[in-house]
Amino acid sequence: MTSLHQFNLQMQPAIDQTMQRVVLSHPRIGQYRGLKDILSYHLGWDVEGDRSEVQGKRIRPLLVLLSCAACNDHRWETALPAAAAVELLHNFSLIHDDIEDRSPLRRGRETVWKKWGEALAINAGDALFSLAFDAIYLLQEKCPEKIVLQSLQIMNTTCVQLTGGQHLDISYENERFICLEDYWKMIEGKTAALISASTRIGALIGGGSDRQQNDLAEFGRSLGIAFQIQDDWLGIWGDAAQTGKSNESDLVSGKKSLPIVFALQQKGKFSRRWLAGPIHTDEVREVAQWLIEEGAQYYTEEQAEAYTRRALHSLADAKLDNNAGQALHELALRLLKRSS
Amino acid sequence: MTSLHQFNLQMQPAIDQTMQRVVLSHPRIGQYRGLKDILSYHLGWDVEGDRSEVQGKRIRPLLVLLSCAACNDHRWETALPAAAAVELLHNFSLIHDDIEDRSPLRRGRETVWKKWGEALAINAGDALFSLAFDAIYLLQEKCPEKIVLQSLQIMNTTCVQLTGGQHLDISYENERFICLEDYWKMIEGKTAALISASTRIGALIGGGSDRQQNDLAEFGRSLGIAFQIQDDWLGIWGDAAQTGKSNESDLVSGKKSLPIVFALQQKGKFSRRWLAGPIHTDEVREVAQWLIEEGAQYYTEEQAEAYTRRALHSLADAKLDNNAGQALHELALRLLKRSS
Repeated sequence: MTSLHQFNLQMQPAIDQTMQRVVLSHPRIGQYRGLKDILSYHLGWDVEGDRSEVQGKRIRPLLVLLSCAACNDHRWETALPAAAAVELLHNFSLIHDDIEDRSPLRRGRETVWKKWGEALAINAGDALFSLAFDAIYLLQEKCPEKIVLQSLQIMNTTCVQLTGGQHLDISYENERFICLEDYWKMIEGKTAALISASTRIGALIGGGSDRQQNDLAEFGRSLGIAFQIQDDWLGIWGDAAQTGKSNESDLVSGKKSLPIVFALQQKGKFSRRWLAGPIHTDEVREVAQWLIEEGAQYYTEEQAEAYTRRALHSLADAKLDNNAGQALHELALRLLKRSS
Repeated sequence: MTSLHQFNLQMQPAIDQTMQRVVLSHPRIGQYRGLKDILSYHLGWDVEGDRSEVQGKRIRPLLVLLSCAACNDHRWETALPAAAAVELLHNFSLIHDDIEDRSPLRRGRETVWKKWGEALAINAGDALFSLAFDAIYLLQEKCPEKIVLQSLQIMNTTCVQLTGGQHLDISYENERFICLEDYWKMIEGKTAALISASTRIGALIGGGSDRQQNDLAEFGRSLGIAFQIQDDWLGIWGDAAQTGKSNESDLVSGKKSLPIVFALQQKGKFSRRWLAGPIHTDEVREVAQWLIEEGAQYYTEEQAEAYTRRALHSLADAKLDNNAGQALHELALRLLKRSS
C-alpha cells in the first residue's frame, strides 16, 4: 500500500467527523431544522453506507492535513479544523456556483437550488460560509491565537479571490472574446486560490518555516492551475467531449477554456467560426481539429506541463523528506495523471 | 445640540471612511473592476454629494461606536473596524435578501440583482461577506489578538443566526399558518442577532466588564425586537399601509408579521379570511379593523412596550453615566419613537 493510500484511509473519516462536529453539533443550527437538512444533503450525510459518490474526493482537506503532517513529523490531527473549514468553504462555493450556472446536477444528484428553490439555496450557502469560519475557531483548542488569526486571514483573502474569480467567470459568459490574461486572472481566483490556501494553512499549522509555507502555497497554486488546464484539455479532446456525449464538449457549452481562449487570439478559422455564433454538436469533431491545427492543443499541453513542473519543483524546494511529503508528491502525480 | 447628534456627526464620516478603506483599498479587489463597481453602487459611493438617501441610516455601526465610547471614556476610534464590519455584514445580507424576496428596489434605487442579474448579485454578496470579516482584522492594529478573535466569533455566530432566521422567513412564505413561537424564533435571528452583536462588540472593544457586555448585548437584542414589532405595527396600521398605498400593507403582501401571527392563533374571523386566500387592497381597511377587534393591535403594542422597557432597563443596568451612554438612550428612544 502506498503512503498516500494509507494516509487517505486514516484522514478521510477524521475529516468527515470534524465537518459533522462543526455543522451538525453547532449550538444554533439545531434550531433551524430545515436548514440542517439542506446542509446534510449537500454534504452527503443523508446517505447510508458508502458516501464517496455524493461527497466528492475531498482533495483540499487532504492537502491541508498532508501539508501539516509533512511539516510536523506526521502529526496532522491539529490541522483537522482547518481541513474541515477548507472543505466547507469549497462546498459553500459549490452551492452558489450551481445557482449561478443553473446546474441541475452535482455529484449525480439534484443540486440544492433545484431541490429547495433558489432562495433557500442562496441562504444555505451563506450558512455554510459562516460555518466554515466556525470550524477554524476550533483550532484554538490546540493552537496559539496568532496561528488561528493567521489561518482566518488566509481563508478570508481566499474568499475574496474566489468571488473575484467567479465574478470574472460569470462576466465572461456575456463576452464572445476574452484574452489569455483574462483567463489566467480568472483561474487564479476560481481554482488556484483555495488549493494554495489549503497547502499554506497546513504548513502554517504544522509549524513549517516561512520558506516552507511559501513553497507549499506555491505548490498548491501551480497544482491547481495544472489541474484546471488538464480539465480544460479534457473538455475538448477527452473521450466524453469528442465522442458519444459531444453535447458535453466545452465547444458546445461555450465555456472560455484555455484552448478556446488561445485560439481566439490566433484570429484564424476557429476564431471566425466561434464569433459567428454557437457551435453545434455535429461540428464538434471538426472544430476540435481546427484547434489542433491552430496550435491550441500544443499550447495547452505545454502550459499543463510547465505548471506541473513548477508544482513539483516547489514541493521539492520545501524539502519534506518523509512519508507525508512523499504522499503529497504522489497525490500531485495522481491528480495530474502522470507516472513521475 | 443633543449628544446623539454630536456623536453622529463625528462618527458617520469615520464609519464611511473605514468601510471605503476595507472595500475600495483592498489589495485584491482592484483586480476585479466590475465587482468593485457593484459594491460601490450598493454602498452608495457612486453618488456625489449627499449620500444619506442611498446609504441608509447606518444605525448598527453607530451602536458599535457608542457602546465602545460609553465603556471607554469616549474613545471610540478603536472600534471603527468593527463598526465597518457590522455595516458591511448588514449590507451583504441585504443584497442576498433582495434576491431571495425578488425586491426590485432598495433605498429608492434598483437592487443589485435587478441591475446586474442574479448570478453577479449572489457573488457580490459573497464578496461583501468576506470583506466584512476583513474589516475585523484591522482591529489588530490597536487591539490584543484575544479581542480580535472574540469579535470574529461574535460576528460569525451572528451570521449563523442571521441565515437561520432568514431560512425560517423564506420557509414561512409557503405556509399560511405559523404560530407565535415560530415568529419569535425568526426575528431573534433575522433582526435581533446583528443589533445585539453590534452593542456587544462595541462593549468588548471598549473594555466593558463582562456584566456590561451582557447588559449591552441584551439592550441591543431587546431594542432590535421592539423595533421590529413597531415596524410590524406600521405595516398594518401605519399611514401608508392603511390609506393611499394599501398595496404596501402587510395584509396584501402576506408577510407573517406579529399582529397577523397573533390573530391566526385566535382562529376567528381574521383567521378564516386569511386561510381562504390572498387579501385584496380593497379589503385592507376592513380586515385591519378585524385585527383590532380580535386583540392583535393591543397584543402588538403590549409586546412593543415590554421589549422597549427591557431595552431601557438593560441599558440602565450597564451603568454608563456619560455622554455616550446618554446618546445610546437617546438613540433607543428615537428608534422606538418615544419621548422618554
